[in-house]
Order: sequence, then structure tokens, then C-alpha cells
Amino acid sequence: MNFNSALENIKSYEAGKPIELVVREYGIDKDHIVKLASNENPFGCSPKVKDAVRNIIDNMSLYPDDSMVKLKSALGKKYGIRSDELVIGAGSDQVIEFAIHAKAHNGSKVLMNSVTFAMYEIYAKQVGAVVVRTTSREHNMEEFYSLYQEHKPSIIFLCTPNNPTGDALDAQDMISFIEKVDSDTLVIVDGAYMEYARFKDASKAVEPKDLIQKFDNVLFLGTFSKAYGLGGMRVGYGIASEPIIKALYKVRPPFNITTLSLEAASVALEDEAFVAECIADNFKEMKRYEAFADGKKIQIIESYTNFVTLSLPQAKNSSEIAQALLKKGMIIRDLSSYGLNAIRVTIGTQVQNSRFFELCEPLL
Amino acid sequence: MNFNSALENIKSYEAGKPIELVVREYGIDKDHIVKLASNENPFGCSPKVKDAVRNIIDNMSLYPDDSMVKLKSALGKKYGIRSDELVIGAGSDQVIEFAIHAKAHNGSKVLMNSVTFAMYEIYAKQVGAVVVRTTSREHNMEEFYSLYQEHKPSIIFLCTPNNPTGDALDAQDMISFIEKVDSDTLVIVDGAYMEYARFKDASKAVEPKDLIQKFDNVLFLGTFSKAYGLGGMRVGYGIASEPIIKALYKVRPPFNITTLSLEAASVALEDEAFVAECIADNFKEMKRYEAFADGKKIQIIESYTNFVTLSLPQAKNSSEIAQALLKKGMIIRDLSSYGLNAIRVTIGTQVQNSRFFELCEPLL
Repeated sequence: MNFNSALENIKSYEAGKPIELVVREYGIDKDHIVKLASNENPFGCSPKVKDAVRNIIDNMSLYPDDSMVKLKSALGKKYGIRSDELVIGAGSDQVIEFAIHAKAHNGSKVLMNSVTFAMYEIYAKQVGAVVVRTTSREHNMEEFYSLYQEHKPSIIFLCTPNNPTGDALDAQDMISFIEKVDSDTLVIVDGAYMEYARFKDASKAVEPKDLIQKFDNVLFLGTFSKAYGLGGMRVGYGIASEPIIKALYKVRPPFNITTLSLEAASVALEDEAFVAECIADNFKEMKRYEAFADGKKIQIIESYTNFVTLSLPQAKNSSEIAQALLKKGMIIRDLSSYGLNAIRVTIGTQVQNSRFFELCEPLL
Repeated sequence: MNFNSALENIKSYEAGKPIELVVREYGIDKDHIVKLASNENPFGCSPKVKDAVRNIIDNMSLYPDDSMVKLKSALGKKYGIRSDELVIGAGSDQVIEFAIHAKAHNGSKVLMNSVTFAMYEIYAKQVGAVVVRTTSREHNMEEFYSLYQEHKPSIIFLCTPNNPTGDALDAQDMISFIEKVDSDTLVIVDGAYMEYARFKDASKAVEPKDLIQKFDNVLFLGTFSKAYGLGGMRVGYGIASEPIIKALYKVRPPFNITTLSLEAASVALEDEAFVAECIADNFKEMKRYEAFADGKKIQIIESYTNFVTLSLPQAKNSSEIAQALLKKGMIIRDLSSYGLNAIRVTIGTQVQNSRFFELCEPLL
């Protein structure tokens, strides 16, 4: 059977290996596995969220409230925006998918950073769009502008803080760039790790409300998968002017968020203190990674997220290091598929991080 | 901002009103609302599923096992098929979306029954495909064949039992039709309600294993949203030959099923006795609807599902009846948007059904 020709160019996303897979493939006891590969919150989610979900277990048989009034109202309050400036996705991933399906088509151009979140390219290729990339490892707004002028892309992705490298754009630099972009180009600002950047450095903090008031061509993305500790529940969101949200709704499948996920995300927003504690701990533990890398003379990219990226010296191969750690039950992310000889490690609990240092000691 | 022109033709899906919405709009106490609008299992899901989900609440922070090995292995065992003949979607809805995105494109033709599940058309229009419909209310295989010959569609949808009418195809008739279709046309057999049809009448039962062994151009769809009582958890599946599954995987987003949903669906398959009891009760209660309709001289379409469709006489307007019931806290589905003067009612518990008869008594 023949399928659409665009499919031939799509490579599948390489996800962090789940614990179950390491148990199956390496026969390691589940309790001895540490996963620092998917930037999950090592403290999980708020206990209030767990209680709330337990309380509505009986509702698993009922279709979700597709108007998502509770979650939208909580998010609207958090950001000072209206419900019609919001769309909820099964992870911010799905909002990226909506945006590409609504705006791009066969032959459209999509501009993104040289190294950035892999799903931008995968979704772009699904509709036959052409991906244009910068050459700089960090987002370079001058290079973005020059490529914008040359290619006139229909969508520009700015990932800040950037995944998988952890660096973040200066918010003012980003805004100055968007000011120069024409209003028919959709600029997607992916803030999946913005909670971390905001904590560490106010100059990196992007305010979605200000952004969409200033620009009617910007879509801001946020997620519950990282700081809010709900990676397994698949809830993210997009914030934009009403016409953009309306277009994304046209390609949104009904009931795209589960009944339990809607409740979990809504209640997560009621316990910001839990999230703040987790973020504070994250940056305290990050200092240990910086000290470890310093001691080993390994370059660490300054991170505004809940992970660190270690650029390895030539003599050390990132795939081999990742594999050696995996055999010992430590799951981290090899970045060789991004063209980097580097590993990405999620900041875990104190105990998990100590285990990482201990296992890396003879390897690095 | 301009979006893809295909979006202009898309109407959004009209879902059954959730209980929360009726509480908000009509100020009716939540406990006094009966929802017989979305074909949910009125007995919910198996208690074993609830226990299993409660036990893994701590895993909400962890990304799902994207290989879905547990669920795929359980489904493979149930149907006697291999894991690579399976794709899991966020509801069978999402598998429909995958199939259309993988196979159809701008100008493709998609053939479907005159009255059938609304999402086929919505997804088809998202990629700019042209929808071709039969004229008969029930699937008429001769008419399907004649339209197939005339239009050479890239996809044909057969919904059996059909939603929202409840009638089902004779399995042998369907197979004889598929035999005449060329192997590059994707035939999608939507069996969302197949568990009910199989119970009521063996001649309507479609066996996915036989189907995909006989045809390499058929995709069978199943769901956990109906008989398995997990409408809120968004889990469905597609069964097909490996090349079709591989193509659908190209357009599948990673982590499309939540951690809790994967567990819920896997465990649901361990308690088939619960499902069998619910189905038996369904058809016992259905007899009461048949008697009610008979007494009122209202035509009821013979149903192989967990709902009944009442075709109203001209003097009764389905929208007005649905609205009158809604004001009394009874949510059912008005089928006027499908071009029918009819209402669709989910078979509920004995108490819920009695309440429906009581409220309908003065209206019909």
C-alpha cells in the first residue's frame, strides 16, 4: 500500500528509555534503576494532586469535560489571560502538532535552532514542510533574522530555555527579534522549562500575557510535564491571541486530555509552593553537577532548566558513556543523535545525583 | 494571520454535553443529572482497574512506557495477533487521525456512509480530502461498491455497528465487499461497539485476526471507551498488517497514552467477566427501550450497541425533545446535526432507564 510521500522523510522520536525497558533488556532490579533521562520532577507531583486523582477514580468511565473549564480557568488566573487565549494539548507536544497542522503545509518553511527539541522537525516533516536550521548551538537572534529574511518561513520556533542544551534566551533580545518579524509568520516560543529560568534569572523570564498583548503572531507553550511533575499525564498548553487559538481548535481532536489528567493539572496549580520547593532544590543540586564537571575538567552548558548537558572531551564517546551507565542501571540521555558528543542528565534527588557521580567517577 | 485553507471547511465535533456543563448552565444539582449521551458504560469500569490505577498514582510524574509493551501484549493475546500488528491511540479517534494523515491528502477522496461517526469527515477535511457519502441510512454494500468504482477513494470507512444509528453489517457481506476493493485502498473497519454486536448476533461479529490475515489493506479499530468503561482514559487501538501499522507509527506522537491510561486498559483486559456482565445487562435493559418505543409507536432502529436510536414522528422535533429533557437533567443526544429527526439514548442502569421513560412519558 502507498502512503503519503512526506512519511518517507520522518524519523521517529528517540525518547528517554523507560525504567520498564531497562528492567526487561538488562535484567536489572527495578529498585536499582535510576532514570535521569526525561527531565521528570524527581519529587513527583504535589501530594494534593495525588489525593485529588484518587478521589475521582470512579470518573474514569466518563468522557472528559471537553470545554476544560476548570483547568482553563485556573491557567487563566495564573497568567492573567482569558480562556479563549488558551488551548490545552496532550503535552505541549500536541500544541506544536496543532500549530504545524494549522499553519504549515507541503513546501512551507519552518525555522529553528541548530540543536533544539526534536519534535519540531518531526511534525514539520509530517506535513511536508522544509526545515531550516541555524548553525549556532545557542539561539543567535542575528542568525535567526538573517535566515528569516532569506527563507520567509511560515513558522519560527524559539525554545527558551532550550532543550536539550539548557541555555536560555535573554527575553528582551527575543522580543526585539519578534518585533522585526512580519505578522503572518507564526513565532512559537516554547517555554516548557520557563519555571526554572524564571527562578534563576529574571532577565530570561518570558511573560506570556505581555507577549500575546504585544504580538498577535506569537504562541507561547507551557507544560505540566516538568516543574509540575506530571510527565505521565500528558498536559500542556498554548497561549496566544484568540484568532490563533481558534485555528488550533480546528485541528484539535475532541477529548484530547483524559478525565484524570484534567483534574491533576487543575489541582497542581493550587499547590505552587510544592513546585517552588522542587525548583529551589533543583538549583541547589545543580551546583553539585557544576562542581563535579569542574573537577573533571568537563564543559557544562550553563543551565536554566532541571537538567545539565555535559559536553564530553573527544577521548570520551557519549554513546559509550551512556551505554556503560545504562548497564549499571543509570538512564541518562546520549545527545549523539543531535550531533553533539554530550550527555544530558536530569537533576534528580540528592541520592540519585550522588549515585550518578559515583557511577561516572571511573568513566569520565 | 493566514492559516491553511483546509481549516475553513472544518466544523467542530459536537460532543455529548458533560455533566459539569449542565450543572453550570442549568443550575441543576449534580446528583440529579443523568447522562445517557456518550455511550459510556453505566457500570463504569472493573473494580480491579480502579485498584490498579490507585496503586500507581505515584507514577503520574513518569513519562509513559512508549513501547506500551504491557498493553500491546495483553491485546495481542486477546486477539491472537502480534505487537507489530497493533497501534494504540488516544481513543480509536486518534487512530482514525493517524490513518487519514498517513494516507489521505489534499484532493484525496474518502468514502463513508450517509450517516456515520462525525470524526471521519472532520479529520478528512483537515487534510483537504473530499468526502463522498452513500445515500442509504444503513451501510449498503452495493452502493458502497458503485461509489468506490466511480470515485476510487483512498480510504473507505465501514462503521459496524454504526454510530449513531446502532445497526450492524453482516460480517460476510462486508468481507465480500472488501474482496472487490483494490489493495491500495485503505478500508477502515470501525468496531468501537463490536463487543456488543458479537454478544447479540454471531453473524455480525468481525474477527480482526481473520480480517488482517485475509486483507493487507484493512485497519480494524477497537476502543476501551465503551464496553470496557474507560471513556475518560482515552485508549483505543488499530489492528492491521505490519506495513500499515508502520505507516501509522510515522504520524503517531510519542507518549500519546498517559501512564495511568496504559495501566487501566491493560488491567481491564484481565477482567473480561466484568465486561461480559455489563453487556448482558445492556441487552436486558434494551428490551425495555424496545417495549417503550413500541408502546409509543415510535420507530427504534435495531441496535447492536449500548445505545438505541429513536426515530421520531414528524410532529415531534428531536432538538426540542432533547432540550426539554436537558432542562430536567436528562442528557441524551439529538441527531438533528446528522440530518435525522431522532434521538440517541445510551442504555443506562435500570434506575437511569426508568428515569428516562418517566421523563419521556409526557413528551413523546
